[in-house]
Amino acid sequence: MINKLIKKIEQNKAPIVVGLDPMLSYIPEHVKEKAYKEKGETLAGAAEAIWQFNKAIVDATYDLIPAVKPQIAMYEQFGIEGLIAFKKTVDYCKEKDLVVIGDVKRGDIGSTSAAYAVGHLGKATVGSNSFYGFDEDFITVNPYLGSDGVVPFIDVCKEENKGLFILVKTSNPSSGEFQDQLVNGRPLYELVGEKVAEWGELHMGSQYSYIGAVVGGTYPEMGKILRKLMPKTYILVPGYGAQGGKASDLVHYFNKDGLGAIVNSSRGIIAAYTLAGYEKFGPTAYADAARQAVIDMREDIMGAICK
Amino acid sequence: MINKLIKKIEQNKAPIVVGLDPMLSYIPEHVKEKAYKEKGETLAGAAEAIWQFNKAIVDATYDLIPAVKPQIAMYEQFGIEGLIAFKKTVDYCKEKDLVVIGDVKRGDIGSTSAAYAVGHLGKATVGSNSFYGFDEDFITVNPYLGSDGVVPFIDVCKEENKGLFILVKTSNPSSGEFQDQLVNGRPLYELVGEKVAEWGELHMGSQYSYIGAVVGGTYPEMGKILRKLMPKTYILVPGYGAQGGKASDLVHYFNKDGLGAIVNSSRGIIAAYTLAGYEKFGPTAYADAARQAVIDMREDIMGAICK
Repeated sequence: MINKLIKKIEQNKAPIVVGLDPMLSYIPEHVKEKAYKEKGETLAGAAEAIWQFNKAIVDATYDLIPAVKPQIAMYEQFGIEGLIAFKKTVDYCKEKDLVVIGDVKRGDIGSTSAAYAVGHLGKATVGSNSFYGFDEDFITVNPYLGSDGVVPFIDVCKEENKGLFILVKTSNPSSGEFQDQLVNGRPLYELVGEKVAEWGELHMGSQYSYIGAVVGGTYPEMGKILRKLMPKTYILVPGYGAQGGKASDLVHYFNKDGLGAIVNSSRGIIAAYTLAGYEKFGPTAYADAARQAVIDMREDIMGAICK
Repeated sequence: MINKLIKKIEQNKAPIVVGLDPMLSYIPEHVKEKAYKEKGETLAGAAEAIWQFNKAIVDATYDLIPAVKPQIAMYEQFGIEGLIAFKKTVDYCKEKDLVVIGDVKRGDIGSTSAAYAVGHLGKATVGSNSFYGFDEDFITVNPYLGSDGVVPFIDVCKEENKGLFILVKTSNPSSGEFQDQLVNGRPLYELVGEKVAEWGELHMGSQYSYIGAVVGGTYPEMGKILRKLMPKTYILVPGYGAQGGKASDLVHYFNKDGLGAIVNSSRGIIAAYTLAGYEKFGPTAYADAARQAVIDMREDIMGAICK
């Protein structure tokens, strides 16, 4: 799956991923009205609005991008109905041949991590049958519990040719509270990064490992160091755009082969019609605004990398 | 909700929580057969088996215990159907007036953490209505992302009079890989513990904070130190029984008031009928075996605390 992701990045000349994190406040009124008319102002109505919104965004952008990253929390907030919309979104994106990175940040230990892995990447066995649960291609994982927590995910990835992105240094302002603490003079995130590189050896693709890392685009100096510490690790970079990360800062997340990183934008794409420079599209053409924002993001990032 | 939890612990003289973590392998054949006959060897069949199994365990134990801790991964592995069984379990336990600790170990940042908090503890607003999602009383949270990740959960807890248990030192063998790293001569988990105590000040009950901690019962010396560092923090203690934690080791997790900790057992209760000392019950009386295991656990722990 890491090989497929790289191939699609190269084909599209777009090391970018669209974050499908639909807040109801991003969804144009006409989309919500239609959904509520059909399903009521209910959890099912919210889920229908999210699904229709996502579908239009995917239809407008899938030919330009290698991957999407639905953030499960935005669906889980609407309970079971929301999660049904998550599953529909995952399935639809896979139909469009997009690589789906489930941003689920799960993490537990032993058989519990294995259960999450089965639910999101693998197959659950029931009697003599087996079934995929959510069936994403990659998921994000929290490393705080150590190898006992991460290796069961890797075991399922090996069976399924799927992958992970493990949190190393997150993009938020307070990520340093624990992640930056110095251990023998070196920040904790470097230790985590080294461990990710080590875990990565367990499941290698042709050039890069199936086991990637999350490193926030808001900390470019740290990104530069982590790039070197984890040479075969694909880096998923949140924090571009709305969170303040600039394309010029992202150059160091890439290797000399022009690969090794994929940059996420969520609000900057899916809610582009509400942002400066895209107002002309208006709410009815929100999907066209998203398409234009993808084109602009690709140009911005490719321009910076290829300098 | 922390006040309710404490009141129920005192009433039942039982600082224990039953972990509802049903692996299909724990569920007796006759329960699975009935479920599969009704719903097929499908995800829905697995979910039905889990739900029927849980219901019988709860019916046999609810009058003895203050709380249950369903581990969502064990449900999430069966996709949407599994999560429907999770929700049914939460609702049923609340009908029985049990405090429900959702072991979800979620953690993200900002609006994403807020979305998880809404989905598990609070209400989602859709148009002019609002709805609970999974509606647990407490959930477990992963602190790796720092205050930006945790405070949005606390904000929802304040609105809803609900609480959290934040991972500090987990019970698994490799928990030390990151959690034990020394920062200025002190292990990281102590820093996390101090932060949990600080976050706890944001949402206090009468004696204890609504914001608790998870500290594995397999590390009693660390538990002793953390108990002192977080005097008003309730500690959820996994690792008793199957994972190797003994009652005598757990004494230090409690304060002098006899409160301050609640000990979890999952397999040791729900799969008691498979364990040494309980075989006489056999698979058909698995719920009676669970009841006896609760009585024995209560005696074991109260005996150790009251020495």
